[in-house]
Amino acid sequence: MKFFIINSGSSSIKYQVIEMKTETVLATGLVERIGEETGRLKNTFLPGTATQRETVLEQQIADHYSGMMLVISLLTDKAHGIIKDTSEISAIGHRVVHGGEDFRESTRITPKVIEALQRNIPLAPLHNPANLDGIRVAMDIFPTVFQVAVFDTAFHQTMPPRAFMYALPYQLYEQDRVRRYGFHGTSHRFVAGECARLLAKPLDECNLITVHLGNGCSMTAIENGRSIDTSLGMTPLEGLVMGTRCGDLDPAIHLFLKQNKGMDLEAIDAMLNKESGLKGLCGMNDMRDIHQAVASGDARATLALEVQTYRNRKYIGAYMAVLGRVDGIVFTAGIGENDDIVRAESLKGLEVFGVHLDPEKNRLRSKEARRISREDSSVRVFVIPTNEELAIAREVANVLRG
Amino acid sequence: MKFFIINSGSSSIKYQVIEMKTETVLATGLVERIGEETGRLKNTFLPGTATQRETVLEQQIADHYSGMMLVISLLTDKAHGIIKDTSEISAIGHRVVHGGEDFRESTRITPKVIEALQRNIPLAPLHNPANLDGIRVAMDIFPTVFQVAVFDTAFHQTMPPRAFMYALPYQLYEQDRVRRYGFHGTSHRFVAGECARLLAKPLDECNLITVHLGNGCSMTAIENGRSIDTSLGMTPLEGLVMGTRCGDLDPAIHLFLKQNKGMDLEAIDAMLNKESGLKGLCGMNDMRDIHQAVASGDARATLALEVQTYRNRKYIGAYMAVLGRVDGIVFTAGIGENDDIVRAESLKGLEVFGVHLDPEKNRLRSKEARRISREDSSVRVFVIPTNEELAIAREVANVLRG
Repeated sequence: MKFFIINSGSSSIKYQVIEMKTETVLATGLVERIGEETGRLKNTFLPGTATQRETVLEQQIADHYSGMMLVISLLTDKAHGIIKDTSEISAIGHRVVHGGEDFRESTRITPKVIEALQRNIPLAPLHNPANLDGIRVAMDIFPTVFQVAVFDTAFHQTMPPRAFMYALPYQLYEQDRVRRYGFHGTSHRFVAGECARLLAKPLDECNLITVHLGNGCSMTAIENGRSIDTSLGMTPLEGLVMGTRCGDLDPAIHLFLKQNKGMDLEAIDAMLNKESGLKGLCGMNDMRDIHQAVASGDARATLALEVQTYRNRKYIGAYMAVLGRVDGIVFTAGIGENDDIVRAESLKGLEVFGVHLDPEKNRLRSKEARRISREDSSVRVFVIPTNEELAIAREVANVLRG
Repeated sequence: MKFFIINSGSSSIKYQVIEMKTETVLATGLVERIGEETGRLKNTFLPGTATQRETVLEQQIADHYSGMMLVISLLTDKAHGIIKDTSEISAIGHRVVHGGEDFRESTRITPKVIEALQRNIPLAPLHNPANLDGIRVAMDIFPTVFQVAVFDTAFHQTMPPRAFMYALPYQLYEQDRVRRYGFHGTSHRFVAGECARLLAKPLDECNLITVHLGNGCSMTAIENGRSIDTSLGMTPLEGLVMGTRCGDLDPAIHLFLKQNKGMDLEAIDAMLNKESGLKGLCGMNDMRDIHQAVASGDARATLALEVQTYRNRKYIGAYMAVLGRVDGIVFTAGIGENDDIVRAESLKGLEVFGVHLDPEKNRLRSKEARRISREDSSVRVFVIPTNEELAIAREVANVLRG
C-alpha cells in the first residue's frame, strides 16, 4: 500500500511516496520555482539505500498542475520509476497549515472540506491558498483516490479556552475566530507518541513537554496525551525565538515603529516574520553558523543564543507549572535533534525541578530516538527525530481505517 | 522633615505630603480634569486618623501650575492647613514612568535630567510629557527645594540582555532603544524589601517573585534582591492580563485586524490598551464585579478570571525556572492584596514546586503584610500591601542622604 504525501507551497510542492507496510520512503522530492522562468524538480528514489537515485530537472513549470504531472511522469517512468501507474497510489495525504476551529483531526477531503478550508484563508492568507492549490490539482489528477487533509493546527484543538483565548474584545473571537491555534501539531503529536513508547506508558497517561526547534520553533504542553497549551499563536509568529521570526513581543511596539521609524503595518509584519528572530539579533539564522561565531567570540551571536535558550527555559517552566507532573521533555526538529548546546542551555537551572541532563548522552550525535537525561532524573529528557511526512502518512492510514 | 510626593498625569496631579520621621501621611489628594471646563480637587488631611478632614473644590483649573497652586493654598491654609508655608517642604519626589536606559536609580532633578527625560518621550509619549509638566511646575514653584525623579523603570535596569532584548533587528535596540524596560518598579522594589524583612534575611540574598495585580499587572523575578526579569515590556502593554490591557498577544494579529476589520494601527493600539484585558473578555474590569458575575453563573466572567489566573500561573512557572530557588512569592496592589480567589487560582497546581497556600490564611482580609502559605511550604507566599507614595518618599530620602 503506497501513500503519496503532498506539502504544497505557493511556488513549490514537497512530496514523498511511502510504502506503508514497511514505512519505507520510495521517493522524496521538491518542485520549486513554480511559475518562474526556470522551475526545478529534484527527486530521489529510495533515499538512504544502496540503490538511491537522484534526478534534477530544470525547465519552466507553469503551475502546480504542471509540477504535479512532472512528478507523476518521473514516478511512473518505465526505466526508473517506482510505480507502474497512478492506480498504485492507495491514498494521498495533504499537509494543511490552518484548519481553524473546523478541524480537530485529520479529515477525508470532500467538497465540504474544501469549502471550510477556503473559509479559513483569512487565518493563514499565505499558506492555505497554496495548500488548496495542491489539493485541487491532486483531486483533478487522482479523482478516485482517497485523499486526506492533515492539519498543523488539529492536534492543538484540545486546548482549553483559558489557554487559547487572548485577552481581546470577545467579539473578535466570536466573529473572526481570533484565538491561539498553534502549529507543528503533526510533529508534536508524532514525537509524543514515540516518547510514550520509550516511556513504556500509554500516551493518554503521559504528561509531556515537546520542544520543536527547527527554523520555526514551538513548544507544547501535553497532558494525558492531549495538547493543552502551545507557544505558537493565531499565526506562527508568537512564542519562542525562531530563525527569522520574533516570537513574543510587546504588542505596542508596532505603533512605536510606525511613529518613530515611519514603517507601515505591512512592513512591520514582514520585518517581524522575516528579519527578526536569530537573524535579527545576530545576522545569522543557521544555528551552526551561530555556534561558530560564538566560538570565535562574536558577542551578538552569543546574545542570540542566550535570548533563544533563555526564552525556551521560561516556556519550559511555564508548562511545568501548567502540567504539575511532567514525565518527559522531548527535543525534536533540526536544532532540537542535533544541537546539544541549545538543549543544555534550554534546561539550565531546571535541576531544582528534577530535570538532570546527562552531559555525555546529550553530546552524543545520533539519528535514533534516545534518552539524554541521567538515570536519576525524575523528569526524563529525550531527543526524538520528527518525521512529518511519516506522521502525515500515519494520519492518512488512521482516517482510511476509519 | 516633610516630603511632597507628586504623580503628575496629563490632566491630573496626585499628591501626598508625608512626615518622614514617622512616615505619616499629612495630606493626600487628587487634582483632576485640568484644562476642562470644571476641574476638581479632593484633598484629605490626616487620612485614617480621628481628625481626618476632607475638602472638595470644583472650579476651573486651567493648567498644572494652577492646579499645584491650588493644592499649596490648601496645604498652607491658616485654619486647616498642615504646613505654615512652602519652606516646610524639605524635598519633593516625582513619579516618572519611563527612565529609559538613562536611569538605573532615583535621581536628583537637574537641567541635565530634564533633558534626558525629554529624550525618553518617544518611549512613553503619553506619560513622560505629563510627568515633565509636574516637574517643571514644581521647579518653578519650589526653585530651591531638593527634587527627585523616581522612575517606574529604574528597578528593572538590572535585567540582563537575555531578558530585556526582543528578537528584533539589532539596530532597533542600538538606534531606538527598543527593548524590555518593565514598570511598577517602585512597587516591586518596595514589597521585595518588606518581604526580606518578613523572611528575616538580607534582601540581597532573597530570590523572590513579586506579583503586582492592580488595574495594571506585572510580575518580577528578583534574584539576590535585583530584578532579573519582568512581565511588562517596552511599554506597559505586554505580559499579564490587565484591567483593559491585553498583555501577551501574537504580534501578527495587528495585520490580521487591519486586513479583516479595516482598523488602522492607532485604532488597534487603542483597543489593545483600553478595550482589552478583563474588560475585553467579559465587559468588566473591576475584579469585584467579575467575582459577582462568576457567582451568578456568568460564563464570560468565569473565562476572564480563568484566562488571567492561568497566565499568572504560567509566568510564575517561567520565573521559577529562571530563578531556580525561590524564597517567597509576594502578592501586592489592589487585586493582589484583596482577592483571595485570584491568589489561590494563580497558585493552583504549583504544589509540586513546594508552593502550599494556607486556605484559611489566604481568605483572611487584612491591611497588614502577612504570610499566607502553610508552615511546611518550601516557597513562602506573602500578601504585602504596596505603598507607592511611601516608596517614592523613601527613595527621595535615600537620594537626599546621598
